[in-house]
Amino acid sequence: MASTDAEGGSGLELERLVFFSDAVFAIAITLLVIDLKLPPAADLGSERAAWQALAETVPRFLGFVISFLVIGAYWVGHHRMFRHIVRYNDSLLWRNLLLLMWIAFLPFPTSVFSEPGRGQMPLVLYAASLGFAGISSAWLWRYAVHHGLVATGTQRETIKYLTLRAVTIPFVCLIAIGISFLNPILARWSFCLIPFVQRIAIRLGARRRF
Amino acid sequence: MASTDAEGGSGLELERLVFFSDAVFAIAITLLVIDLKLPPAADLGSERAAWQALAETVPRFLGFVISFLVIGAYWVGHHRMFRHIVRYNDSLLWRNLLLLMWIAFLPFPTSVFSEPGRGQMPLVLYAASLGFAGISSAWLWRYAVHHGLVATGTQRETIKYLTLRAVTIPFVCLIAIGISFLNPILARWSFCLIPFVQRIAIRLGARRRF
Amino acid sequence: MASTDAEGGSGLELERLVFFSDAVFAIAITLLVIDLKLPPAADLGSERAAWQALAETVPRFLGFVISFLVIGAYWVGHHRMFRHIVRYNDSLLWRNLLLLMWIAFLPFPTSVFSEPGRGQMPLVLYAASLGFAGISSAWLWRYAVHHGLVATGTQRETIKYLTLRAVTIPFVCLIAIGISFLNPILARWSFCLIPFVQRIAIRLGARRRF
Amino acid sequence: MASTDAEGGSGLELERLVFFSDAVFAIAITLLVIDLKLPPAADLGSERAAWQALAETVPRFLGFVISFLVIGAYWVGHHRMFRHIVRYNDSLLWRNLLLLMWIAFLPFPTSVFSEPGRGQMPLVLYAASLGFAGISSAWLWRYAVHHGLVATGTQRETIKYLTLRAVTIPFVCLIAIGISFLNPILARWSFCLIPFVQRIAIRLGARRRF
Repeated sequence: MASTDAEGGSGLELERLVFFSDAVFAIAITLLVIDLKLPPAADLGSERAAWQALAETVPRFLGFVISFLVIGAYWVGHHRMFRHIVRYNDSLLWRNLLLLMWIAFLPFPTSVFSEPGRGQMPLVLYAASLGFAGISSAWLWRYAVHHGLVATGTQRETIKYLTLRAVTIPFVCLIAIGISFLNPILARWSFCLIPFVQRIAIRLGARRRF
Repeated sequence: MASTDAEGGSGLELERLVFFSDAVFAIAITLLVIDLKLPPAADLGSERAAWQALAETVPRFLGFVISFLVIGAYWVGHHRMFRHIVRYNDSLLWRNLLLLMWIAFLPFPTSVFSEPGRGQMPLVLYAASLGFAGISSAWLWRYAVHHGLVATGTQRETIKYLTLRAVTIPFVCLIAIGISFLNPILARWSFCLIPFVQRIAIRLGARRRF
Repeated sequence: MASTDAEGGSGLELERLVFFSDAVFAIAITLLVIDLKLPPAADLGSERAAWQALAETVPRFLGFVISFLVIGAYWVGHHRMFRHIVRYNDSLLWRNLLLLMWIAFLPFPTSVFSEPGRGQMPLVLYAASLGFAGISSAWLWRYAVHHGLVATGTQRETIKYLTLRAVTIPFVCLIAIGISFLNPILARWSFCLIPFVQRIAIRLGARRRF
Repeated sequence: MASTDAEGGSGLELERLVFFSDAVFAIAITLLVIDLKLPPAADLGSERAAWQALAETVPRFLGFVISFLVIGAYWVGHHRMFRHIVRYNDSLLWRNLLLLMWIAFLPFPTSVFSEPGRGQMPLVLYAASLGFAGISSAWLWRYAVHHGLVATGTQRETIKYLTLRAVTIPFVCLIAIGISFLNPILARWSFCLIPFVQRIAIRLGARRRF
């Protein structure tokens, strides 16, 4: 039956899936730099104008740094999940492609978000995109857990830990969108909360054992 | 004889071929985002203008999504074929390069297709490019099957299944080109048929055992 | 001694070298498409203007195809060489980086070469860049052969074959540059000679056993 | 405990970390070419104008070559370090991401540095970026050495050698910034000192056995 082929596999083929994902993560994280540009040399008469032009790219540079670290965090999460996933099937493959689609999409909202002075829209776009990547990541993980694609020795704490890791970034993004209705500038700083919220969530999760 | 070297190989070298292909797929799929751009900040005075600019990128976003999923589908197909291909020779190498050329080419027709309002040409270009990728994929697979490059244990159903998978996308593209003579807007929606046609074709193929 | 570390290695580290090279080849070959662009939609009023705009990109498309196939040919050559190279040292590492530099550079001459109507300069730039890549490739291979980095069982015919493969592209490029002084348009077609010259050279080499 | 998962691992997971790093290095090194562009064909009337346009890209080409070789040198260094690193933990992961961030950032300062005539700013930006990459590299290595992540058989000379390798590029960059206050043109040439300073430092280090 053709369906036997469609049922998926493990071992080498799983390695290729992981490899392909790594390549997409690596390309998306490196494409972020393409958006960093100075105005052309013709506009820069003096030394002072050159430094000022550089100073004007600082918001873009910060956008580059935040997105680099967030994609890095998602890659670390993906890395951890696939340490425990030992089998895959078609559904996992497509859920993984969905996650990769959001990752590959991130250079666009980063570019919009990094340009100075556009009010609330760039923040909502950016936070929503980051959030969808996190939700896809959590969806992938929960699917793997509930369909027996995870190694049998995986501890319940690890499963909970990885779910919490995936969910905290969307949670912070939701807060950022909320704050943006009050103050878009303040909302931008809420992304700095990610590492702290992640630690708190993991500790609470470890205690409550839900 | 020099020809012994040209006869190809298996194992590690085949792995390198697969790896190179994966990298090209991953880069092509991630480059799709480069085309997503907002008009520069200077044009966006108010919050409303910013949201409108975002709304105008929706067709480009849809183009990104469709191409991402189609390249993803071709990657899944390639992944499956090379699960069964255990040897390679020069001809397979070049057929694979031809497939990769069409994959690497796809960001261009995607970009043309995603821009609003150009009538029939973008659709024909897009459908033809997708179609050529599928034909190359089928050509690669049939070559491998007929020249003993496939594992001996591979079932006839699997061979048929993978041929049908490769052929359905060009089939839908042909329909889309046909519809575009009547109505270019309607033709755009025909790409949504791909997953359904693929399933129907596979079921029919499984029954008829041709 | 620090020098023991600098002496190089084999096995897994060699695999990483090959992997890195594959990634550079894959990225360079996929970046070629970035240069394919239509004029923006605003300029395209009618259906006919759209098709004409597409027709104007044909030279760029041909440039894409030629460069894709040539980089593909270099990748196949690299692939073959590293089937026989079993050890590496610092000098091989840097000679490989030099080859990769020319490969990574190729999207630029391709872009210049593909634009219509610039006379002799684009052809000379393109042919010289392709040629340098070939010379670097031959240099890498001869170094590996003469410094005992190649598997001991490698046949003399294979060594000669791979040298000839690497050298034929620069040879055709030299011819193309020569012809360009007479007729730049005719010179462009000389790149189509590459597969034929390669076959002839390999046969002659196999016969003469020099 | 969730913490057991966060403690890191070795073997296959370490391989994935190395692989991801290789991909980022390969993409950053290949993206350097994107900045190489001729003025559009419309501006180039005669053959002479075409050659002059090419001559004007020479500074950009030199920037491409220098950055290619420097990223190449960092890749070789990374390659060497991970020949000895056999375990990793979260801190190493993030230090590695920091290094990759600077590597992925390099196409931007290269682009600014390669444009003709902007005085001191491009040099300072370029030297600082290269320097930060080197410092991150050294920081990664010292962390691995001091936290038992390096193979037990690693010789003290190797550890010293790799530290010196990582530190020499920032050292030359500091000199370049110093010279730029006197003469920005002269400062540009100081990057050619890198291979010489690296050799001298390694020899001195080997002698002093500090």
